Formats: sequence, structure tokens, C-alpha cells
Amino acid sequence: MTDAAPRRGRGRPSRTETEAAPATRDRILEAAREEFSERGYEKTSVRGIAKAAGVDSALVHHYFGTKEQVFEAAIEVAFAPALAAPAAVEEGPLDGVGERLTRFIFGIWENPATRTPLLAIVRSAVNNETAAAVFRRLIATQLLRRIAGRLDLPDAELRAELAAAQLVGVAMLRYVIKVEPLASAEPERIIGRVAPVVQGHLTNP
Amino acid sequence: MTDAAPRRGRGRPSRTETEAAPATRDRILEAAREEFSERGYEKTSVRGIAKAAGVDSALVHHYFGTKEQVFEAAIEVAFAPALAAPAAVEEGPLDGVGERLTRFIFGIWENPATRTPLLAIVRSAVNNETAAAVFRRLIATQLLRRIAGRLDLPDAELRAELAAAQLVGVAMLRYVIKVEPLASAEPERIIGRVAPVVQGHLTNP
Repeated sequence: MTDAAPRRGRGRPSRTETEAAPATRDRILEAAREEFSERGYEKTSVRGIAKAAGVDSALVHHYFGTKEQVFEAAIEVAFAPALAAPAAVEEGPLDGVGERLTRFIFGIWENPATRTPLLAIVRSAVNNETAAAVFRRLIATQLLRRIAGRLDLPDAELRAELAAAQLVGVAMLRYVIKVEPLASAEPERIIGRVAPVVQGHLTNP
Repeated sequence: MTDAAPRRGRGRPSRTETEAAPATRDRILEAAREEFSERGYEKTSVRGIAKAAGVDSALVHHYFGTKEQVFEAAIEVAFAPALAAPAAVEEGPLDGVGERLTRFIFGIWENPATRTPLLAIVRSAVNNETAAAVFRRLIATQLLRRIAGRLDLPDAELRAELAAAQLVGVAMLRYVIKVEPLASAEPERIIGRVAPVVQGHLTNP
């Protein structure tokens, strides 16, 4: 064993960079989320993310690869709670699934920390096919199919998507377009009307 | 009465332009719809619209004013059928309003001629506050309030917006994000599930 610094290959991070990797990686991810949120997918560049994170572009490519991969990683972090949600949805009784799902979705939209990356995803997915594909892969396949799997009904996937459509539409009009009175209504007033609809889509005959 | 050509003021369209006004105005509007559809609100310029229509930028300003006003005019044309819809919705029996509204919205989304400007509106409104304000003013106030006015229920506006949210969400997932199986499902399969939900939002106790 030796304490001598290892020789560095060209383009390979230095030992200091390697030791600082988790912090640097998080800083890049945080910068990526902010850049994508503010500018949308198309106007965001790897160079801009690197600059915001105070690192070289090569380091962004080193950790994440292409711009699409940085975007996907940023979405994954933003959706770590979302991807954990179906477990809670699956565990409870099926006749409360509509309310649990509705409350969960409202929770992440009402929290400014999760609302920002969600807005970034929506804005990017609406305007860019690459971002839409990432959205489809992450959300549609993971969140919806897991709920649909619990239903054990014909049309289960379509049902789960129509339930999701109600929630997506409320989010669009309340948080993105900001239509009144929906934008300012108390969450409980909306949840009281929306949760039974989500439940109906999932379990009504 | 004289046939002598009127004197032209600076910046005023020539007599020839005035005679050609309806055709020119329509050509500018058509170009505006296409530019906004393809590029979104932010990347579209009055200069670009003028170029696509084969006219001078000054003529675009002459007919429509600012870029926001061109956008609003383009949306109004795209939504002429949408703004006429509530009449049909109002005229029929209230217990069929959910299905009539759902069929109407599907009709304009399934028709490629109206789908293009709708996509332009959604993409622009999601990314730009000016475009979102135009969307709110035109759609929320005209389409939703007229339906809400028919309901004569407490929370009528919120009910109309939650019904609209179901339709907006279906449109987002089916036509914009293109989540399967929703994107490829037969319209009647979706209408059969969505119309009762829209009806319920509007008239359930």
C-alpha cells in the first residue's frame, strides 16, 4: 500500500475529484434541475449546467453522459418519491386507492421543492420529443403500470391512464395555466371532488 | 365622387392592399398559426410571420398590433368552433351535457386541422406567461364560465374547471405526451369512460 497519488489518465477525474464525487454529482444534478426548470429542455445545454454547477463540461459528460441522460437523471431524482408512491398505493385497501393517489400527487405539487422539477418535466415534455419520451418511460411505465397491475381488471392500463389524466389536467390548470378559481381553491375542496373520480376510473365496473 | 386614387399616408396600406385586405389578413393569420404551432410563442417573431406570409412586418403590425395580439387573433380563429360550442352544450338537456362536451372536445382534437393550433396553444401556454394569459382569458372565461352559468349550483365554476381538467389531461396524455394505450385507443372507448366523469363533475350532488 502506498500513499502516492495515482497517475491520472487524460480526461479521468483527479483523485480529489473522485473523493468529492458524491457532492459534485449532486451539485451538477441540482444545477441541471434548475436549468431545465428555468429554460426547458431545448434551451438547456450541458455547458450551461456545467457553468451553473461550477465544473467543467467534461465532468458533466463523465458523470451523466449526454444531455438526455442528464435530463433523465434529474427527473429520476425529482421523481424518487413519485416512484416510491405506488408501494403505499398498493399496500392499502383498494377502495381507498383513489384518495391515496390524489393526496400523494397533490403533496408533490403543493411542495415547492418538488413542484419546480415537475414544472420542468411538464414544460420540457410538452415541447420536446426527447423529453416526452423520457417522461413516458419513467412515469407511464413505472407509476401507471404498477397501479394498473394491482387492479386485475380488463382495460386496467387505460383506466390507470384516465385516472392519471384527471390528475394531470388538474395540475395543468391549477399550477401551470393557473385558471381561477381552481388555482386558488383550498386543496381539500379539490381533493374532495377529484379523489372519487380517480377511484371511479380505477375500480368502477 | 372621383376615381382618383386617394393620397396615401405614411405607413397606411395602399389602395391595392386595402382591397386585398381580407385575403392578406387571412394569409397572415394562417402564417401566424403555423409559426406559433411549429416554434411556440417565444421563438415566433412578427418578422418570421411576415416572411412566411410574404408581406412586410409593418403590415402584420398594421392588421394585428403586437405579437401578443397576433397570437390572440390566431387563437381566436382556431377557437371559433370552440367558442361556438357552449351554445350546443347549453341548448340540450343538462343530463347529456357531459357527453356533448366530451364529444365536442374529442372532435376538435381528432381533426388534424384544429389539432395543430390546439397543440400550438398548449405548447405556448405551458412555456410562456403571456401565452398562458391569453389562454386563460379566451378559454377559461368564455368556454368555462358559459357552461358554469348553465349549472346554477354552488361551486359551479370549480366544477366546470374540474370537468375541463379531465378533458385537458386526456388531451395531454393522448395527443401531446402520447402515452400508450391511451394514445392509440379508439375514441369511443375513451368517450365511454370520460363522458360520465365530465357529467358527474358538472351535475353530481
